[in-house]
Amino acid sequence: MESLTLHEDPKSGNCYKIRLTAALLGLPLERISYDILLGETRTPEFLSRINANGRIPVLQIGEGDGARFLPESNAACWYLAEGTHLVPADRFDRADMLRWMFFEQYSHEPNVATLRFWLYFIGEGNLSEAQRGQITAKRIGGEAALALMEEHLASRDWFVGGTATLADIALYAYTHLCEAGGFRLHDLPAICAWIDRMAALPGYVAMD
Amino acid sequence: MESLTLHEDPKSGNCYKIRLTAALLGLPLERISYDILLGETRTPEFLSRINANGRIPVLQIGEGDGARFLPESNAACWYLAEGTHLVPADRFDRADMLRWMFFEQYSHEPNVATLRFWLYFIGEGNLSEAQRGQITAKRIGGEAALALMEEHLASRDWFVGGTATLADIALYAYTHLCEAGGFRLHDLPAICAWIDRMAALPGYVAMD
Repeated sequence: MESLTLHEDPKSGNCYKIRLTAALLGLPLERISYDILLGETRTPEFLSRINANGRIPVLQIGEGDGARFLPESNAACWYLAEGTHLVPADRFDRADMLRWMFFEQYSHEPNVATLRFWLYFIGEGNLSEAQRGQITAKRIGGEAALALMEEHLASRDWFVGGTATLADIALYAYTHLCEAGGFRLHDLPAICAWIDRMAALPGYVAMD
Repeated sequence: MESLTLHEDPKSGNCYKIRLTAALLGLPLERISYDILLGETRTPEFLSRINANGRIPVLQIGEGDGARFLPESNAACWYLAEGTHLVPADRFDRADMLRWMFFEQYSHEPNVATLRFWLYFIGEGNLSEAQRGQITAKRIGGEAALALMEEHLASRDWFVGGTATLADIALYAYTHLCEAGGFRLHDLPAICAWIDRMAALPGYVAMD
């Protein structure tokens, strides 16, 4: 595989997903850090060369003029893992893995990750009125997402099939950090056991 | 392929994605309708058998006790289209297609589709105060998503590679309906031309 470079903010669980995927697959990954709180992913150079959407993570494949850039954390994980043990060989299971990854971006991340970002990094007192008005809805949405995960994991070890896949990696990133957003893991024993299983995977790396 | 049944609300662009994918591939699809405004996807039977997340669309594969259920519109499209001309053969392009599909669910649908739902189906006067407080942010977010699409399509006919893929289908669903949410297509000529190209694809079906 060509050289791999992760444009990231180490605070971001979305960036961590890619780092964890690469680590579990034994793929070397260069890292270039940006501080989203300082607007470093909104500079003209970043927007024109790395990602016109002004977001990290972006996975860079190759170098120089031939470099290609892949935004969206779950798409980058897919690029790294397609054809490996982290993507199921069965057609339905593969789609079912993507189902959990879309669930993560639609129903989990905008609630669980956003409340962590707002409450832990920005601080409740610094939020706009519009943001403060969304806290309750995001709390309810995040608790519903975690409850669905808890129910699913009550009868199985991994989200899809019998081994860890990208679905687990995508959902692990912000779930294991959710208490920073005011969510409680204490009443979610199946999720807690799964978090322990994730951390025991060969090659696992923790967030910085 | 086993029998395919779409659990849907015909008002939903997310459901339409699956119907359009099946039509472009010539796959027969049974349809079972629910009215989300009447809570028909929150009944105990729906939650226990079809989708514990209480959402449509759900693609059902097979029938009876052996039936399997796949929520999340983009995952269902993937299941139908994997290995066909709607999914690129190149590894990077395949991941890049998923990149646009995750962008759609994270940056486009929660803004463009939600404003259509709120303003066209629920009505601004019936919104909660918390919903009304989000209209401006969703307007800005939706316009940014459409601007990014316009910029991308200014120099190419399709989102990834030289033919229509699932990325186009995913983004087409709510983009071609966006004026119902108060967005204007008039100033987005590249998107308008792409919408015309989509509607000219062999096998294309319109929303009901």
